[in-house]
Amino acid sequence: MGSSPAADDLPYELRVGERTYVVTRSTVDDVPAIVDLLHDDALGAARESTTPADLRAVYRHAFEEIDADPNQLLVVVTRQDGGVVATLQLTFLRTLSRRGGLRMQVEAVRVAASERGAGLGQALLGWAVDVGRARGAVVAQLTTDRRRVDAHRFYQRLGWVDSHQGMKLDLT
Amino acid sequence: MGSSPAADDLPYELRVGERTYVVTRSTVDDVPAIVDLLHDDALGAARESTTPADLRAVYRHAFEEIDADPNQLLVVVTRQDGGVVATLQLTFLRTLSRRGGLRMQVEAVRVAASERGAGLGQALLGWAVDVGRARGAVVAQLTTDRRRVDAHRFYQRLGWVDSHQGMKLDLT
Repeated sequence: MGSSPAADDLPYELRVGERTYVVTRSTVDDVPAIVDLLHDDALGAARESTTPADLRAVYRHAFEEIDADPNQLLVVVTRQDGGVVATLQLTFLRTLSRRGGLRMQVEAVRVAASERGAGLGQALLGWAVDVGRARGAVVAQLTTDRRRVDAHRFYQRLGWVDSHQGMKLDLT
Repeated sequence: MGSSPAADDLPYELRVGERTYVVTRSTVDDVPAIVDLLHDDALGAARESTTPADLRAVYRHAFEEIDADPNQLLVVVTRQDGGVVATLQLTFLRTLSRRGGLRMQVEAVRVAASERGAGLGQALLGWAVDVGRARGAVVAQLTTDRRRVDAHRFYQRLGWVDSHQGMKLDLT
């Protein structure tokens, strides 16, 4: 991929082997497909809901808040036939630490089972890193559940460093 | 501490044993003291700068961006004599996952060496959790460098669960 200033210009074409995908800023019409990806997952199945009422209310409301925030970028990846096959969410966080450095946080990375193992995840993360650099972020960060052993290896292969403990506290 | 809706009202008084501290929303005048806390740290010493030029330019610019963002809350803790002795930064992140749940991210937690070991850190994190609940967050999250063994034990004692790998990628 290399560092390309155009990564931040959407839609962005991703070539993965013989296949072509397009990264687009998600719209409210993508919400059901994104929630399907979040739900079609060993951990997400218990946490998400795909009822029409929840899609119309809680997820849609959350989407609108994300979409209105200039520090957030929720994208979907579509195949040439128009189907949504991957998603991730980027959040840009300013902190005083690291000399006032901008951090890029990556959340909710999902690739549809049908497209796994062919390099789409790697291409998508490569695109995300290019966006981070284009926006001036000094560090990218994400946490991955320890039970996701494959994900952990995936990020390490892409050069991410497992330097931190990711701690969570349930507030519900 | 308990869950108190008043936690979100600043200034907020923290009682720690015989001592009383006050949590306030940081102002631009607190920037040098916050940077001193970030710098007075085994990892931060190499990453931060305390030159007057950097305090006036890069850190001040970063502060203004944080202060203008309604999803960010950078606080300082002061002693009764007015000295800044602790800081942390809260960021509220909406995602679609967890049924559109709000996450509270905790960054840049520092307690001055002079005040450690007496319970101020515990009281400050307890306050932060109360703020998260008051704002409707479903989960709080933070990452801590694996080299900070004491910090890791501290969060576990407060009930935080070490469930994730915290992965970083240097973008510089």
